[in-house]
Amino acid sequence: MDVSSLDPDRFRISPGDAPGLADRPTRADDLLGPDDEDAKATAEALNEELSERIGDLQERLWATKAAKVLVVLQGMDTSGKDSTTRRVFGAGSPLGIAVKGFGRPTEEELAHGYLWRVHRHTPADGEIVIFNRSHYEDVLVVRVDDLVPEGRWRRRYGHIVDFERMLADEGTIILKFMLHISHDEQRERLQERIDNPKKHWKFEHHDLRVRESWGEYMAAYEDAITRTSTEHAPWYVVPSDQKWFRDLVVGRVVVDALERLEMPWPDPEPGIEGLVVE
Amino acid sequence: MDVSSLDPDRFRISPGDAPGLADRPTRADDLLGPDDEDAKATAEALNEELSERIGDLQERLWATKAAKVLVVLQGMDTSGKDSTTRRVFGAGSPLGIAVKGFGRPTEEELAHGYLWRVHRHTPADGEIVIFNRSHYEDVLVVRVDDLVPEGRWRRRYGHIVDFERMLADEGTIILKFMLHISHDEQRERLQERIDNPKKHWKFEHHDLRVRESWGEYMAAYEDAITRTSTEHAPWYVVPSDQKWFRDLVVGRVVVDALERLEMPWPDPEPGIEGLVVE
Repeated sequence: MDVSSLDPDRFRISPGDAPGLADRPTRADDLLGPDDEDAKATAEALNEELSERIGDLQERLWATKAAKVLVVLQGMDTSGKDSTTRRVFGAGSPLGIAVKGFGRPTEEELAHGYLWRVHRHTPADGEIVIFNRSHYEDVLVVRVDDLVPEGRWRRRYGHIVDFERMLADEGTIILKFMLHISHDEQRERLQERIDNPKKHWKFEHHDLRVRESWGEYMAAYEDAITRTSTEHAPWYVVPSDQKWFRDLVVGRVVVDALERLEMPWPDPEPGIEGLVVE
Repeated sequence: MDVSSLDPDRFRISPGDAPGLADRPTRADDLLGPDDEDAKATAEALNEELSERIGDLQERLWATKAAKVLVVLQGMDTSGKDSTTRRVFGAGSPLGIAVKGFGRPTEEELAHGYLWRVHRHTPADGEIVIFNRSHYEDVLVVRVDDLVPEGRWRRRYGHIVDFERMLADEGTIILKFMLHISHDEQRERLQERIDNPKKHWKFEHHDLRVRESWGEYMAAYEDAITRTSTEHAPWYVVPSDQKWFRDLVVGRVVVDALERLEMPWPDPEPGIEGLVVE
């Protein structure tokens, strides 16, 4: 595979397929051959083009209201959810792009069903909303930490498929990305947060406890992706040990989806031609 | 049938059954025999008891957080949605009961999927929320007035069943009431709004246009109820030409559902016994 002709669909999980996370590459090298500087430089140039393209497409989306767009970013700590948002969507206008992070639920949120807090932040016509973590935490951390009984979280796979189908039927394009990093890469990134004073603020002791449950999280992701990757809301498992490759895959998926909308600029108001402002 | 031994389940629509609205009684007389004063007086005494009982059960629900309760009221203009709320739920505490009316959607609401605006108002643990109109308008007025293409509103029956199942799985008791009045009864009530200056504020010319589509609305209700009455979120079609009978049916359904929760008062904090406040 050549980085400039990358087919982003090869990272999409077909409905019913298991992603096989344990054997799935987290690095471009496994796909491209040796990790040469050329691939990285080529990808970085492509990423700049993609970023501009997304800026333009987002403006057209906002102008035409051609669809609602929901981007879900999931991944282990340090997998790059924040950085993907900045780097891939950074050229978009804040008017039509919103990022919503879902942390530990509040008491009020817990008192409602788990889809309550996410539904209210889903996009309107013309908007792109990026979920940094999402309703998937309710079948991930909730499962690993045993926060509700198994029968209850298992039923959620079905709810989520139904919920996302309803959003899609009502005009939402849903793109879900699992930023897939290796256990080793996470060790390095966490160590960097500990060693580099400028990154201290990102580190929490809690992250180490979560890391101890790595295997259980992978099992939870494996099931969640298998059960909820659908035609109307596909999962993409993105090799994310290298930012340049991760950005390339996410950027390409987003651009392809937006370009499929075919959004010519709306016609101007009638009578605008020759109008002189006095 | 005797009014004091009324079985509210006879008004419930079993999953898959059609309500047969055209032939379904809107008056108690059709069920009780002649509409004698005794039945009315008996029902009114029962309704006072039911109202107090609901006040007590609602307080227990709030204290125990035993469930979330969603009551959906639907019906043609003048069918008594407001009056049912006041008369059946009037004894509850505003702390744990909320009424949410859904009128013509705002531009912001229209820009989202139709379940967006209702989901955010669904109840939390311990709350009773009464929807005065609801997401069902999106398969009723939307169908009759042809506001979205048929393929789109038809898919909504499935969305609604799925949405309500998710709410139920997450701890919501859902009770849906169609307040069934006759075409004649509506004529009298609308005329009263026109003739009685104190009721002028309730009248809108638009109501007469909706009345012209009575048959289409009945067809839309017939399909909606057939497709969405489920074990987890049943529809009750309530004969509503007489308020005393309507209140009796709704009150009994609500009391039965809340009593099934078995909500003993929570234990006091340990060490409260013998405690002297100084």
